[in-house]
Amino acid sequence: MKYDLVVIGGVAAGTSAAAAAKRADKNLSIGIFQKEPYISYGGCGLPYTISGKVKSPESVIGFSPEEFSEKKGADVYTGFEAESIDFKNKTVKFLNGKEVHYGKLMIATGASPVIPDFSAKDEKGFFKLRNPDDATEIINYIESEKVKNAVIIGAGYIGLETAENLSEKNINLTVIEAGNNVFGCSDGIINKILKDYIKNDGVNLLTETFVKNVYKKDSKFSVQTDKESIETDMVIVAVGVKPNTDFIKDENLKKFNNGAIIVNDFSETSVSDVYSGGDCATVKNIITGKNVYYPLGTNANKQGKTAGRNIAGIKEAFPGILGSMITKYKNTEYGKTGLDIVQAQAEGFDAAEVYIKAGSKAGYYSGNAEIHMKLIFEKSGRIIGAVYCGQNILQRLNAVTALIKMNGTVYDLENMDFAYAPPFSPVWDINLLAAANAVKMIKKI
Amino acid sequence: MKYDLVVIGGVAAGTSAAAAAKRADKNLSIGIFQKEPYISYGGCGLPYTISGKVKSPESVIGFSPEEFSEKKGADVYTGFEAESIDFKNKTVKFLNGKEVHYGKLMIATGASPVIPDFSAKDEKGFFKLRNPDDATEIINYIESEKVKNAVIIGAGYIGLETAENLSEKNINLTVIEAGNNVFGCSDGIINKILKDYIKNDGVNLLTETFVKNVYKKDSKFSVQTDKESIETDMVIVAVGVKPNTDFIKDENLKKFNNGAIIVNDFSETSVSDVYSGGDCATVKNIITGKNVYYPLGTNANKQGKTAGRNIAGIKEAFPGILGSMITKYKNTEYGKTGLDIVQAQAEGFDAAEVYIKAGSKAGYYSGNAEIHMKLIFEKSGRIIGAVYCGQNILQRLNAVTALIKMNGTVYDLENMDFAYAPPFSPVWDINLLAAANAVKMIKKI
Repeated sequence: MKYDLVVIGGVAAGTSAAAAAKRADKNLSIGIFQKEPYISYGGCGLPYTISGKVKSPESVIGFSPEEFSEKKGADVYTGFEAESIDFKNKTVKFLNGKEVHYGKLMIATGASPVIPDFSAKDEKGFFKLRNPDDATEIINYIESEKVKNAVIIGAGYIGLETAENLSEKNINLTVIEAGNNVFGCSDGIINKILKDYIKNDGVNLLTETFVKNVYKKDSKFSVQTDKESIETDMVIVAVGVKPNTDFIKDENLKKFNNGAIIVNDFSETSVSDVYSGGDCATVKNIITGKNVYYPLGTNANKQGKTAGRNIAGIKEAFPGILGSMITKYKNTEYGKTGLDIVQAQAEGFDAAEVYIKAGSKAGYYSGNAEIHMKLIFEKSGRIIGAVYCGQNILQRLNAVTALIKMNGTVYDLENMDFAYAPPFSPVWDINLLAAANAVKMIKKI
Repeated sequence: MKYDLVVIGGVAAGTSAAAAAKRADKNLSIGIFQKEPYISYGGCGLPYTISGKVKSPESVIGFSPEEFSEKKGADVYTGFEAESIDFKNKTVKFLNGKEVHYGKLMIATGASPVIPDFSAKDEKGFFKLRNPDDATEIINYIESEKVKNAVIIGAGYIGLETAENLSEKNINLTVIEAGNNVFGCSDGIINKILKDYIKNDGVNLLTETFVKNVYKKDSKFSVQTDKESIETDMVIVAVGVKPNTDFIKDENLKKFNNGAIIVNDFSETSVSDVYSGGDCATVKNIITGKNVYYPLGTNANKQGKTAGRNIAGIKEAFPGILGSMITKYKNTEYGKTGLDIVQAQAEGFDAAEVYIKAGSKAGYYSGNAEIHMKLIFEKSGRIIGAVYCGQNILQRLNAVTALIKMNGTVYDLENMDFAYAPPFSPVWDINLLAAANAVKMIKKI
């Protein structure tokens, strides 16, 4: 086999790259090689399939291999897991014994959940949640075993989004987190609010608790922590992910310590004609200018698109990311863009922050709820980050995202003409109040 | 009487100016003179008092006169309607015969609804909706007269927000608009969608229909249009507002044709030591650099605050507005920032637009709804406006507002790192899709 462009991995970055490359150059022959039986799925939607807010695990799939081939003009091969790459002879070998020769190569093999070496890790009822099959297995197991309680190991996005949806199925939950933070939130005040909210919802949230092992006896699991042991019907591990790059042994391909493939703004790796992007690669943080590992679907899609355009000969830089994210546990949303104060100071910024509380709507309007916010800025006034929790935070977060991208300052934000009406915000929106406080603080310094 | 600062009008701009001036200079003596018995109210909340989404007309009042005096340090006089101003002798005369001498004067007399000279205009059951008393009268009339149907004259914000809330009280509605636009929307496609939505909700929406007169016979009103005549229980007029400045006869105070007092960035009028702001004054549009009349509570508050700071001796320019607004009819929101294509071309911009539809959430997530958007940009790529209708539009609108303020381009928007999760947006958010289409369009030009 032989293609102008070989893409290994067909979820977000891989399919985006293939589609963009083909759009830019109709004459390219493209082959996508994917280990799973499906491609092009939105893994971020999977936790919501448990409660039914997303109808089924299949519904997060964007295109079947056949549809993708037909609409986007790339050949799609499933059941092809890469075994090795020979950069010199430009070939990829697969575990099924097949081989393909490439003109250009896009490595988009994504990441896999880290599974600690627990005794029960291969037992039925011990799960990860990464692909549609995982979700189907979890849903079926809850049904067939009449699951009443579950332990989730890890209180990051996947862990807590899964918790929300299990809780909505009336399953009693223990969530165990080795660190002190939920959703990876390194802001002290916001983290505390989020933790309290999750606990008040009835979740047995155990932070700074380390899971030593998980056993299965009969149909129950026993989760052994450094403090206690917990009996449960089901275990889901969500302690982070690791780039799927171990199969690449050639040291000419430069990687991060965690295995992420280092790419430049054009998605080029250290090996010529080899590109990468998505959850197996680094991405540039716009604020620090540094390469980081930030595996999110939204980054994968955008970076993949730019990679595809560069592969097709259009020299176009991907601007990078700001670290923007949003998630929620039931009615409480958590979101962030840029750096929080801990990160800003660690990166050497002469930064300060203001903390502020305000309503999500006009105070007198029904459904008005509390928002908590941190605004992080340099003493010049330049905004470098914001952290929010509460309701309807995205309308605030996206505005600050745009400002950070444009090197906007607290002075720009202070009198910003945001659209106002009582069902949507107070007259003095939380962003405006935060900026006014920041201006006052700067003037005192 | 004598004050360092006399403020006439005590709703939004007046109270903001007084509070800001006092904060900046504790030694200022300040008197606020207000014609109504209350001050400091959020008129924008009043339509929602009809359905109970805002509990009562009183709940939109921020401070009683006494509270305001105590907390903000200004004397408050109610029942004081200005009769005339003598700029030479620096005195304001009131209809109640009193007089006050000012060091500096802030004119914040707001605006009043335009009431056409209909036969029934002084009858019970014929309403405007501007202040808490109006809302109370409407609510009481609906109750006491068991109102089953109503005619609203005017399909602007107030007219349609009132329609939403009357409809939720199961009152059959006819809304009559002389123009072709609802919510003042001058974008053809978005206006059509909004009109269809309102009609499909059961409102008898008559556009391009001119009301010639309204009579009352017995307990019913007869609304005579140029096309038909409509019998109804109640009439609400919402055809626009007019600055309350007719009482100022001295031509040294420069006004717009409609009576709005012309101010500069420091809220200074053409008469020295006289300031103005809010619904009785002009405000600068940032994009065109021109003074406009744009009477919204959010502008009044911000402009008033800056006015107060300037009055207290802090030279600080109000940056101006972008024309941002948001409103809704039930589940359908309409919002805008900057200029639409009609306005942009009228202002001489070499502008183009893209129209795009996309989901409010991930396609597979429950509650995903349609958003329609126009993005307006110069051929250089600079974004100068955006128009939206649908659900959850403010998270999109605020981001473009920030971009316009920062002279951002479609290239800045195209790969913007907006926070993503399935309950909040698709991976490719409507703003990103619009920007990508705009980039394509520019490259073809």
